[in-house]
Amino acid sequence: MIAFIQHSGNANFRYATNLEVEHAYHVFSIHETGLKVAEELNLVVVPDLERERAKAESRAEEVLTYSDLGYYERMRRNSEYPLGESLLSLLQQKGVDRVAVPEDFPAKLALFLKSRLPLEVMKNPFSERRAVKSEEEVEKIRESCLAAVEAFKFVLRFIEKSLNRGRKRTCEELRSLVELRLFSRGFLAENTIMASGIKTHQPHWTGYGELKGHLIADIFPKSREHGYFGDFTRTVVIPELGESGEIVDMLRACIEAKNRAEQMVKPGILARDIHCEVCDVLESYGYDTLRKNGKEGFIHATGHGVGLEVHEEPKIFENDDVIKEGMVFTVEPGLYYKKCGGVRVEDTLVVRRNGAEILTPCEDFVVL
Amino acid sequence: MIAFIQHSGNANFRYATNLEVEHAYHVFSIHETGLKVAEELNLVVVPDLERERAKAESRAEEVLTYSDLGYYERMRRNSEYPLGESLLSLLQQKGVDRVAVPEDFPAKLALFLKSRLPLEVMKNPFSERRAVKSEEEVEKIRESCLAAVEAFKFVLRFIEKSLNRGRKRTCEELRSLVELRLFSRGFLAENTIMASGIKTHQPHWTGYGELKGHLIADIFPKSREHGYFGDFTRTVVIPELGESGEIVDMLRACIEAKNRAEQMVKPGILARDIHCEVCDVLESYGYDTLRKNGKEGFIHATGHGVGLEVHEEPKIFENDDVIKEGMVFTVEPGLYYKKCGGVRVEDTLVVRRNGAEILTPCEDFVVL
Repeated sequence: MIAFIQHSGNANFRYATNLEVEHAYHVFSIHETGLKVAEELNLVVVPDLERERAKAESRAEEVLTYSDLGYYERMRRNSEYPLGESLLSLLQQKGVDRVAVPEDFPAKLALFLKSRLPLEVMKNPFSERRAVKSEEEVEKIRESCLAAVEAFKFVLRFIEKSLNRGRKRTCEELRSLVELRLFSRGFLAENTIMASGIKTHQPHWTGYGELKGHLIADIFPKSREHGYFGDFTRTVVIPELGESGEIVDMLRACIEAKNRAEQMVKPGILARDIHCEVCDVLESYGYDTLRKNGKEGFIHATGHGVGLEVHEEPKIFENDDVIKEGMVFTVEPGLYYKKCGGVRVEDTLVVRRNGAEILTPCEDFVVL
Repeated sequence: MIAFIQHSGNANFRYATNLEVEHAYHVFSIHETGLKVAEELNLVVVPDLERERAKAESRAEEVLTYSDLGYYERMRRNSEYPLGESLLSLLQQKGVDRVAVPEDFPAKLALFLKSRLPLEVMKNPFSERRAVKSEEEVEKIRESCLAAVEAFKFVLRFIEKSLNRGRKRTCEELRSLVELRLFSRGFLAENTIMASGIKTHQPHWTGYGELKGHLIADIFPKSREHGYFGDFTRTVVIPELGESGEIVDMLRACIEAKNRAEQMVKPGILARDIHCEVCDVLESYGYDTLRKNGKEGFIHATGHGVGLEVHEEPKIFENDDVIKEGMVFTVEPGLYYKKCGGVRVEDTLVVRRNGAEILTPCEDFVVL
C-alpha cells in the first residue's frame, strides 16, 4: 500500500482533516498512479492533548496520539528520533510499503523515512483539489471579497472627509482604519497595503508616511469564522494631492489589461494565455514586462488562486495550468517604475461555465 | 565551504534576515563544527518583486532575485526543477561544497540538493540563538504579556458587570471582546481560549456556549508592530454560576505547582527539573500526569519558549535543555478530567541571574 503523509500547519492539512492543530500528521492511502486518494487508510496522529478535539472535529477515520504510537517511551529510552521511529512503526504496522510526501514536507522526517522505505516527493493531491471550489467555498470567498470592497469604500469616505476638512492623513492611519474596521466585522487583514508616493514602485511595500497623489489599496482579509480569504486592489487617484499624468496613464493601461484578461477567462484556456493577454496590452502601450526581461514595469504574475490561503493554485503566469470551472483566482496587472511609482488593479473572480464572475464588484478607475 | 540554507515563512528566517517575504531563501556559511555561523556568505534570494524591499530592509549582505539566478530562463526552457537547479548553480558558483538544512526545510528541495551535494539536516542555528533574548526582545515580550493581562482584567470587569445585571454571557462573546480589545490596542490574538463548563477537559478547546462556574482564559497576543508574543492564562472561579469544589482543589494544586516551579527557575537548571517539580506537586495531591502514563490529569508539557513564535525553544518538559539567563518561557500546569473539566494557570517569565522575573503580573486565584 502507498501512503501519503502530510503535516499540519498548512491549508492542505486543514482542508483534508478539518483540524487546526500543531505537530500533527495525516496519513492516507493513494492509488498506484499517484494523485488519487484511496480508501484503505485515513488517519491522523495528534499530540495527546488534542485527542478529544481531534476525535470530535476531524474528518479522518482514525485518531491516534503520540502515546498510542509509543513516542513518549522512545523519548524516555533516548532513542535517536522518537517521532520518525514512531511514525515508521505505525506505517509498517498498517502494511504501508511505499510512502509519498508533499514538496513542503519537513526534510528531517522525509530523509529518515526515505532511509527505511521507498519514498517519493509528490504534489499534494489536496493542492489541486483545493483549486476548484465548491459553491459553498465560493460563497465564503465572496464574503471576504465583499468585506474587502466595503472596507475600501469606508476608507475612501474617510479620505474624502479628510480632504474636505483640509486634514492630512498617513498611510499608517488608513491601514489601521481598514484593518480595525475589518476585524470588528469578523475578518483579519494583515499587511494591508495602503501605499502612496514614489515608493509604490515596490509592489509589496505596505506604505508609510503622508498620503500623496495616488494610493494603492490592496486588501486581503480572511474570515475569522471560516478562514477563507478575499483579495482586492484599487489605485485611487487624488488630484488634490498632486497625481501625475504618468500614473494615470499606467493605471488606465492596467485597467484595460485587467478587463481584457477577465473577458477571456473561461474553462479550458491556459493560465499562460491570460497572463500573455495582460503582457500584450501593457507592452502595446510601451511598458516593460518580465517576459521581456524588464526589471521594471509588470514584474509579477497576473494572478493566483484564493481560498484557505491568499496565494494558492492556480498560478496565472507563464504556466500551462488548464483553467477549470469553479476555480477562484485574481487578475492583478500592475506597473512599477522608480521614476514615478507604481499602480495595480486587482479583482478576485470565479470561473463559471460561460466566463468569469467577479467577486469584488467595484469601479476600476477611482478618483477623489 | 558549508552553507546552511533556510527558507522563508518562519520565525528563524525573519529573525536572521529581518524580512517577511514568501518564497525566499537565506544562504549563510557555517563553521565545520556545525552550529556556528561563519562570515563568508550571507545572502538572500527573493522573488523579483521583492528586490528593492529586501535591499532596504534585509540584514543579509547580498540580495539576489530569481531572475539573477536564471530561474525564469530555466522555467521557459521547461527544465525539470527550475528552483532547485537555480539554487544549486548559485551554491556551486559560491564555492559551496556541503549543505545543511533545518529540520523543517521543504523535502523536495532537500532531496534534490542531496542528490547533487553532500547534505545534512541540522538544527537551525537561529532556533537556539532565539531562545536567549536580548533586553530589547524582553521588553517587546513584556509589552505583549501586559496587554494580555490588561485584556484579562477588562473581560473580568465585563463579566462582573454582567453578573450584577443578571445577564448571561457566552464564551464566544468573551472571546470577541478580548480579541477586539487587543486588536484596537495593536495586538493580534487568535484562538483565544475562553472556555467554560465540562468541555474544558480538552486543553485546547477554545470554548463555546454559556459561561458556567469556571472560566479558563488563555490569551496569547502578538504585537502587530514588532511580532513578539506574550502568553498568559488564569482560571476564574464564579461561585454565582455554580463552581465545583473539585475544580477549586485542582486549581489550588496547579497554582502551587506553578509557584514552586517558578521559584526554582535560575540559570543552570534543567528543563526536566522544572517539569518534574510540577509533576511532583500535582502527584502529591493524587492527580495523574503524563509521566505516569495518565490519560487524564496533567497531559501536556510544563511550558515553552515565547518570542517571535508563541511556541518556541526551550521546551519545558522531560528534556535536558539547560536553562540560561535571558530565556523567556511559560510555566503552565493544568489538570483535565472528563468528569469535571479542566483548569490551568500560566505565567510567562524571563530567567534572570538570580531567578525568574514574571512578565505576566496578576493574582493567581481569581474569584468573581
